[in-house]
Amino acid sequence: MSDRPTACMLLIGNELLSGRTKDANLAYIGARLNALGIRMAEARVLPDEEDVIVAAVNECREKFDYVFTSGGIGPTHDDITAACVAKAFGVALERNVEARALLLRNYSSAAELTEARLKMTEVPAGATLIENPVSHAPGFQIGNVFVMAGIPRILQAMFEGITDRLRGGAPMLSRAIGAAVPEGVMGGPLADLQSRFPDVEIGSYPFKRGAKVGAEIVLRTADPARLAEAAKAVRDLVTSHGVEPEETESGESGPI
Amino acid sequence: MSDRPTACMLLIGNELLSGRTKDANLAYIGARLNALGIRMAEARVLPDEEDVIVAAVNECREKFDYVFTSGGIGPTHDDITAACVAKAFGVALERNVEARALLLRNYSSAAELTEARLKMTEVPAGATLIENPVSHAPGFQIGNVFVMAGIPRILQAMFEGITDRLRGGAPMLSRAIGAAVPEGVMGGPLADLQSRFPDVEIGSYPFKRGAKVGAEIVLRTADPARLAEAAKAVRDLVTSHGVEPEETESGESGPI
Repeated sequence: MSDRPTACMLLIGNELLSGRTKDANLAYIGARLNALGIRMAEARVLPDEEDVIVAAVNECREKFDYVFTSGGIGPTHDDITAACVAKAFGVALERNVEARALLLRNYSSAAELTEARLKMTEVPAGATLIENPVSHAPGFQIGNVFVMAGIPRILQAMFEGITDRLRGGAPMLSRAIGAAVPEGVMGGPLADLQSRFPDVEIGSYPFKRGAKVGAEIVLRTADPARLAEAAKAVRDLVTSHGVEPEETESGESGPI
Repeated sequence: MSDRPTACMLLIGNELLSGRTKDANLAYIGARLNALGIRMAEARVLPDEEDVIVAAVNECREKFDYVFTSGGIGPTHDDITAACVAKAFGVALERNVEARALLLRNYSSAAELTEARLKMTEVPAGATLIENPVSHAPGFQIGNVFVMAGIPRILQAMFEGITDRLRGGAPMLSRAIGAAVPEGVMGGPLADLQSRFPDVEIGSYPFKRGAKVGAEIVLRTADPARLAEAAKAVRDLVTSHGVEPEETESGESGPI
């Protein structure tokens, strides 16, 4: 697993910390990165505060192979992500001619490009644009940092346009096996199994469906043979408790 | 606002980074802290990896007044939060007699307390338990760190049992005013408004409902008089664009 590049996501916006909005972007990007063989190693939810964002961008672009941000690239005063990323990289924030042309598609004349809207054409010097097929105002890439919109539909469209810029390892494969056996009973044998398969990540997620108590055992590895072996071992373990294992699609490897 | 204590939430679990699970706990705790006059200043989503969790606990308990964690306190091998917090504080992980008694409520005899289940009675030396009225396996508090379950129903019940341990400032008040005016048109005047009300946090969140494009303007401050003044200014601004403002409950100040 160590050859897979790592990523960190910075989810930017006071509304995510105040409880007003629930993030939906981390799960999307995390699942897509799995399929591309990149490991989402950490995420941070940050307020709209310059010093906090600048520090996090600089810490994370050093620490991880890729950094993806969501939020804070709109036309209002609380959209400060582009300015913060420019500051983090120590470069000027510039109005981008190409971004202006893209944005103009939304309007019948240049007179509609208010100062607020022109703010959306500002990117750090040296950045490459990220296209926005939904509402045209672009994101951008500078170094290993990819700056995208917070609105899920736009973020997803932006991300699908940049996958060829990412270099991944072997795609992460996963399998989920449901077992109507309490975790307190399976816990010991599962720990033994993890020792036997140190190269397979084994997660246990309890469920309670009516009177049925059990856990979903999720196996993750890039090696299809080891995945099959570990899955067989889990199925045998579940069967040894007199219960039929329920194999389900985990849905991690594709878009969700 | 500076007199309000700060908090950081650590959301622990590979499943949150792989896209398997969407977190629902940050929004709950964030909203409840608003009502208690505590500011959720940051959150981090962390993998089930000891060195990462230990480092984050130690960094965040220094940096923020309160740290809340969710996830990783179950009976299986991938539940490592208690051990990590003990290590972060440099104390032993101990089986707690009181936790054992609480856990026993779930079973008809002590023979059912498997090694895996006894793992749920392990807390750092010197910790105070956090009651779990749902499934009895407790969380714990050590210093300014509060360790809770990842399952939302349990986390919420745990949190409601510890609010008397938290010292907050004035509760955060908020108001949301909807305006069917594009952000690109309102952006300039809104920035001016933010300059006139530096003590009120003004957020703008765009919406598109059918053909109706606009933004919800969210005002946040602990000062009711300033909130009323800022709200009037926003309403006047919206009205000046020939549009009727729609005032809605923001729902931030109560449980959601």
